[in-house]
Amino acid sequence: MVLIGDKEYFKGIGEIKYEGRESDNPLAFKFYNPEQVVAGKTMREHFKFAMAYWHTLCGTGGDPFGPGTKAFPWSTATDPLVAAKEKADAAFEFVTKMGFDYYCFHDFDLVDEAGTLAESEKRVQQTVAYLKEKMNASGVKLLWGTANLFSNPRYMNGAASNPNFDVVAHAGAQVKIALDATMELGGENYVFWGGREGYMSLLNTNMKLEQDNIGRFMRMARDYARKNGFKGSFFIEPKPMEPSKHQYDFDSATSINFIREQGLENDFKLNIEVNHATLAQHTFQHELQVAADAGMLGSIDANRGDYQNGWDTDQFPNNFLETAEAMLVFLKAGGLQGGGVNFDAKTRRNSTDLEDIFLAHIGGADTFARGLLIADAVMQKSPYEDLLSKRYASFTSGKGADFVNNKLDLETLAKIGMEKGEPQTISGKQELFENILNQYI
Amino acid sequence: MVLIGDKEYFKGIGEIKYEGRESDNPLAFKFYNPEQVVAGKTMREHFKFAMAYWHTLCGTGGDPFGPGTKAFPWSTATDPLVAAKEKADAAFEFVTKMGFDYYCFHDFDLVDEAGTLAESEKRVQQTVAYLKEKMNASGVKLLWGTANLFSNPRYMNGAASNPNFDVVAHAGAQVKIALDATMELGGENYVFWGGREGYMSLLNTNMKLEQDNIGRFMRMARDYARKNGFKGSFFIEPKPMEPSKHQYDFDSATSINFIREQGLENDFKLNIEVNHATLAQHTFQHELQVAADAGMLGSIDANRGDYQNGWDTDQFPNNFLETAEAMLVFLKAGGLQGGGVNFDAKTRRNSTDLEDIFLAHIGGADTFARGLLIADAVMQKSPYEDLLSKRYASFTSGKGADFVNNKLDLETLAKIGMEKGEPQTISGKQELFENILNQYI
Amino acid sequence: MVLIGDKEYFKGIGEIKYEGRESDNPLAFKFYNPEQVVAGKTMREHFKFAMAYWHTLCGTGGDPFGPGTKAFPWSTATDPLVAAKEKADAAFEFVTKMGFDYYCFHDFDLVDEAGTLAESEKRVQQTVAYLKEKMNASGVKLLWGTANLFSNPRYMNGAASNPNFDVVAHAGAQVKIALDATMELGGENYVFWGGREGYMSLLNTNMKLEQDNIGRFMRMARDYARKNGFKGSFFIEPKPMEPSKHQYDFDSATSINFIREQGLENDFKLNIEVNHATLAQHTFQHELQVAADAGMLGSIDANRGDYQNGWDTDQFPNNFLETAEAMLVFLKAGGLQGGGVNFDAKTRRNSTDLEDIFLAHIGGADTFARGLLIADAVMQKSPYEDLLSKRYASFTSGKGADFVNNKLDLETLAKIGMEKGEPQTISGKQELFENILNQYI
Amino acid sequence: MVLIGDKEYFKGIGEIKYEGRESDNPLAFKFYNPEQVVAGKTMREHFKFAMAYWHTLCGTGGDPFGPGTKAFPWSTATDPLVAAKEKADAAFEFVTKMGFDYYCFHDFDLVDEAGTLAESEKRVQQTVAYLKEKMNASGVKLLWGTANLFSNPRYMNGAASNPNFDVVAHAGAQVKIALDATMELGGENYVFWGGREGYMSLLNTNMKLEQDNIGRFMRMARDYARKNGFKGSFFIEPKPMEPSKHQYDFDSATSINFIREQGLENDFKLNIEVNHATLAQHTFQHELQVAADAGMLGSIDANRGDYQNGWDTDQFPNNFLETAEAMLVFLKAGGLQGGGVNFDAKTRRNSTDLEDIFLAHIGGADTFARGLLIADAVMQKSPYEDLLSKRYASFTSGKGADFVNNKLDLETLAKIGMEKGEPQTISGKQELFENILNQYI
Repeated sequence: MVLIGDKEYFKGIGEIKYEGRESDNPLAFKFYNPEQVVAGKTMREHFKFAMAYWHTLCGTGGDPFGPGTKAFPWSTATDPLVAAKEKADAAFEFVTKMGFDYYCFHDFDLVDEAGTLAESEKRVQQTVAYLKEKMNASGVKLLWGTANLFSNPRYMNGAASNPNFDVVAHAGAQVKIALDATMELGGENYVFWGGREGYMSLLNTNMKLEQDNIGRFMRMARDYARKNGFKGSFFIEPKPMEPSKHQYDFDSATSINFIREQGLENDFKLNIEVNHATLAQHTFQHELQVAADAGMLGSIDANRGDYQNGWDTDQFPNNFLETAEAMLVFLKAGGLQGGGVNFDAKTRRNSTDLEDIFLAHIGGADTFARGLLIADAVMQKSPYEDLLSKRYASFTSGKGADFVNNKLDLETLAKIGMEKGEPQTISGKQELFENILNQYI
Repeated sequence: MVLIGDKEYFKGIGEIKYEGRESDNPLAFKFYNPEQVVAGKTMREHFKFAMAYWHTLCGTGGDPFGPGTKAFPWSTATDPLVAAKEKADAAFEFVTKMGFDYYCFHDFDLVDEAGTLAESEKRVQQTVAYLKEKMNASGVKLLWGTANLFSNPRYMNGAASNPNFDVVAHAGAQVKIALDATMELGGENYVFWGGREGYMSLLNTNMKLEQDNIGRFMRMARDYARKNGFKGSFFIEPKPMEPSKHQYDFDSATSINFIREQGLENDFKLNIEVNHATLAQHTFQHELQVAADAGMLGSIDANRGDYQNGWDTDQFPNNFLETAEAMLVFLKAGGLQGGGVNFDAKTRRNSTDLEDIFLAHIGGADTFARGLLIADAVMQKSPYEDLLSKRYASFTSGKGADFVNNKLDLETLAKIGMEKGEPQTISGKQELFENILNQYI
Repeated sequence: MVLIGDKEYFKGIGEIKYEGRESDNPLAFKFYNPEQVVAGKTMREHFKFAMAYWHTLCGTGGDPFGPGTKAFPWSTATDPLVAAKEKADAAFEFVTKMGFDYYCFHDFDLVDEAGTLAESEKRVQQTVAYLKEKMNASGVKLLWGTANLFSNPRYMNGAASNPNFDVVAHAGAQVKIALDATMELGGENYVFWGGREGYMSLLNTNMKLEQDNIGRFMRMARDYARKNGFKGSFFIEPKPMEPSKHQYDFDSATSINFIREQGLENDFKLNIEVNHATLAQHTFQHELQVAADAGMLGSIDANRGDYQNGWDTDQFPNNFLETAEAMLVFLKAGGLQGGGVNFDAKTRRNSTDLEDIFLAHIGGADTFARGLLIADAVMQKSPYEDLLSKRYASFTSGKGADFVNNKLDLETLAKIGMEKGEPQTISGKQELFENILNQYI
Repeated sequence: MVLIGDKEYFKGIGEIKYEGRESDNPLAFKFYNPEQVVAGKTMREHFKFAMAYWHTLCGTGGDPFGPGTKAFPWSTATDPLVAAKEKADAAFEFVTKMGFDYYCFHDFDLVDEAGTLAESEKRVQQTVAYLKEKMNASGVKLLWGTANLFSNPRYMNGAASNPNFDVVAHAGAQVKIALDATMELGGENYVFWGGREGYMSLLNTNMKLEQDNIGRFMRMARDYARKNGFKGSFFIEPKPMEPSKHQYDFDSATSINFIREQGLENDFKLNIEVNHATLAQHTFQHELQVAADAGMLGSIDANRGDYQNGWDTDQFPNNFLETAEAMLVFLKAGGLQGGGVNFDAKTRRNSTDLEDIFLAHIGGADTFARGLLIADAVMQKSPYEDLLSKRYASFTSGKGADFVNNKLDLETLAKIGMEKGEPQTISGKQELFENILNQYI
């Protein structure tokens, strides 16, 4: 690693290297080999792995039944700007030791919010200046920035969707600060996660006004950023519930509908989170596919949920059966449009060793790398692609092609149906597809 | 009742009357009083209650663990056309005894499918002729018709989304027959429920092609119907899963997105089913609100799910807390656009008395009527509406109104936020809203 | 109300009275009339309503996405004992204003935990002395006490089930202090809720050892309490998940199995929580019935979950359809064995007015009272009980009675089956039962 | 294969062989090598793979939205006994081609039920005689038999739990016939799956009487079988729901509680089904562990559910991450007590080729074999076991051992806790455990 501050926070842990599957070293990658070329790109380029500031540096393990359990050595200073610098030092030590190229943040992950917007803005700007130095020295880049519009009690009824215009205006100021910071740091994208944009009870909610207000708010943010030269994408991050009883950005399809309704389709794409997909009763793969089919597969928040629990557990990815299927969608879609793979995941509350943070990110990166290798092998070596295209071959010629080319009307189609008689029974061969995939894992 | 055939199938049961809440008679309405005026319309006009041919006359109680339990006296004839007439006799006996004005059908609810499309068409036409007579005699109307594109094994891989064009063509023929029947009977609407339009495994599925094909198929159906003078609405009925692992029309928002993407927004609205809402992790009210906000609240399939079970139980409505909240949305939206309330519900497998079918519909109609009475009382007599409009009052004047009128840019909004300082804390008062609602129940 | 401290915390709110259903006063009971006799007891006696110290006085609204929103005026003192007294003042002000007779607590709800067990014990004892005075003056009683063995980071891997014996011993000391406090205050029961007694990952867990250790721990606690004269019941509170991935006391049946396996059946019963039931895919009624059938229906934690969310939302009860069915089980079981109805519920994070706490408890008490009135009416006036006993009449005489009295062997039973031929088809009449219930609501 | 009837039903498919992971042949095992020794036993002995008569030979693909799709060539005869023989021929052809050693059945899988019990008994006996011949000739054995007490309409309100004693007696006769058949065929176990033993509505249900009646019924069956020399185990198969709204045998813990309550613990163990575990919000591993800890891990019904769907999808196993964790429990428990691994799974409704049945079973057997190989490697070669025992080392000596040996009382335990001071923070290392497991996959 190239850059740390005065202190080394993760003592005894050096740079994480690829050592291959047989290695006994728990602090080594077994599958993620950054420079290995797969499907025409290095793994590094495919994934653009990013560290999430909030979980990795700020998440001390609190949950609804108890406070944090983790004593982070970079969180001891009482002066907020000193604390911000120490946190930044820890951040860059971690990212460079992991060999990652990116990080992501919310405004007040970087530095504690102050008592006024003006003072908060100053703090953010000073921290941004320090981050800029560290980025220049290390080559680490900003995948995306965002504003935390959900933690502060003022947002308890929503931010852009708040019934009180004063809160909307406050949120507007905060987004402007976060956008300025993102642009100043050369951030490649900007994210909106509507943490409390939804409702607790439909009874006291004017849903249409709230959603239209969010649309207005986003168009204003977009116009401001474009005017100031921002070239990146905006991402909406779907989530069906929590903290709100119902979140407005329920899933990919709902978010795409909103994007279109609000005229944002030229600037906005999706940031798909695994655990948010499963909370919405979808697979991760499904959500990626829906986004890809709409040309909106922007970025990924990598984690996993728990199939027996109904809240956002944000565990680190470890299911490579899931990532293998996801990487099939990913490769066929040509990868992500502007984004990367951000580890929006936290070690368990009872994983209290600093080492655990490395073990978790290693397991996560390996899970994505392994998925990519499997997906590539399935596409290159197995009969999978061939079977799939044969399944839809009837649409590539004759009347089927006419249908796809919108050349038939209902009378003609019905006539064809009448003449053809009972169609042949053709097995979907699901078990064969599944066996093939498993064989390449 | 005015019209039955040669036989009386529901012997000993006369016309169901409104007798009020204190009545001891289980075969009487306690809340549904068809001619009672609520919020400017009779209950009859608000609801346009309809009988569902498939459950009420064809559903004998089979489930994945056993065959049907119910011996319907109108299902004994071996000749399909005789059987169809006897079923129609039972249908009109039931609808008129209930005092309802509408019914709904799938093509092959009316008469059994034949071995060829040509023969099936003939059977449908002959049954339609008989239905027409009965409709004229009784005044009962057709709320909507549809084609069953999911039961026959040929549709096991989908209908309009089938990977085999021959099946798509067959489905096209079937839809033409069903549209012709619906138009011939003066049907007020036509429904698409994509029973197997979805996937069993994403691995063997080309999702984009399949969805685009559904879009094409629907545009062809629309064009045909319009060309032939059909003035009613088309409805898509959202459902998240079952029978497919994933249905394409997951929920209201997903279906609206599809409608817009496929250019169907001038002709298509939604038919919202209660149990489909709960399977999608939404409340019924939520799904109605989403549809209403998009101007697409077309019709309702009334039933209920089971909060502890994860499949489509299609029980009769009996939760008037749920319908009361739903009727608040309904009244504020100005009711349904073209559709009505169709009892897409079935008596339990072990409810084997013919009487149970009446008891179930009576309970269902009372549940909607009670919901309407409550919602109307809440809106007319309680502080509910006033509390709600006060909650959003900041958007009706000053800078809040400027915001809503799209007169602000981000810099201005941020400046307002900076100047206003910390917004006031304003309780959402959810418990108060809930108590008010409960008091009016 | 009779007793408050120096300050009145809930200013402007007087004693809550029963004013009946038509009252316009949001701060009045509409259904809960404490002295009204129903089924042979006053409502006050049936329910023994209790305030939960933790939610009502300590819960400021934090959730995983943001800190507390509520500024409680009784939580301003920095000295822990002063703060404890002020909180106690607020507690008794609230309980007496509500007209309730009971409260419940965890040890460190009463007073903040200190740096050592010895110091914590001293704090608890001093606070207990103060509570005793207030209880004597007001007549308010302690329904149950418990120890918080889940919030402190030391319990992150469990308390009695911790893999480290040192933590088990620490928990033992804490339970002894809590038991002493409960006994000193004349507590009528003592509760174990295994907040982190479960696992995060089965991979790193020795489940059998952990569960046996919990059994040992409980037997030790029981023996200590009995030796010191405690006559009340111990309650286990089932919960399926959260905060652990899997809680050992999943539901009523699982907890009863554990109680029997560990030889605790003479001393332990269940404390059933509504939201925990729904998280376990049961109805509240089901969990009550299972407990009642085992003679273990001890107490109730009243709240409600959200059917579309998968975590413990702990909302105040407002669904009287649910409580009506629950009260049917309750009345038939002869009520609770030793316990009462404790409002283990919290106002929403955005319900920030002090008044909201009253509105919520009023709504909750009314929901239970209304349920009781309905259940009593159904049992007294409707055909419900009669229909139910007729359904099982075949077991009250003849061979059916022989069967129930264990007088038949399989050969005899089979012979009876052979001779009887095909049994009659008898409808379950579910819709009729449901309609009857609805009519009495 | 050694034995087929006159016809070969699975034409073109020979015996399935182990060919190893690299094989291109879809009709070969890649991981299941029957004679390979793992952890001291052959794979064949570990698993005792069984074919399920009902799915494999009788399940034509019907679901609630359509009839069967699969035309089985062994289901063409109209004479029930001829059809039974042809089905048996197909069964033994399939089992021997797969190289499996076992099969399982319900009574009326073997032969269609007749109009009377006496006639049904005769049919079963005749079919049993034919099966016996085939078993002798092939060496294939019966893992377990059972009676179908849920499909026939007479059981719509339950079998042993039916409110009508006549139905209970009918069920008794059927169980006697099925037990006789199982014993005649040397069946190694007998299973009770309470298909409709549960309730549709708690409102019309006397739960305690119903459950006690089931207990009586099972004791009678046990006594009869023991008297007639049956040495095998009885298994209860837990399932939380479906077809009933609530099944009495919800999960392992509930079933063990029932077994103990009814005095069946010396004769009854559990048959754990994967999909039933997931429907109950447990992992498969959890259910195995609960059964193993109670000494009741009897048998396995192998399949898988769908994490996004809420009904019993009964898909073939293909998730070897799941089976690897399950095999860790399995190996540590010393395997199954009397039972085996029965493929209670069905090919998808749209998997209509006869070949698909082979592909599905091959994938399933490979998934279990691969899981076993992984679990064995983890236990033999990785630090897993060592890490786990270190985690609980504090209970193996000193005061911790005294605790485990029940030598401490609460005062002593509390004193230890007081003296030890704040326990050390020890990470649960979940991510490390997970990474280790993944590395061995």
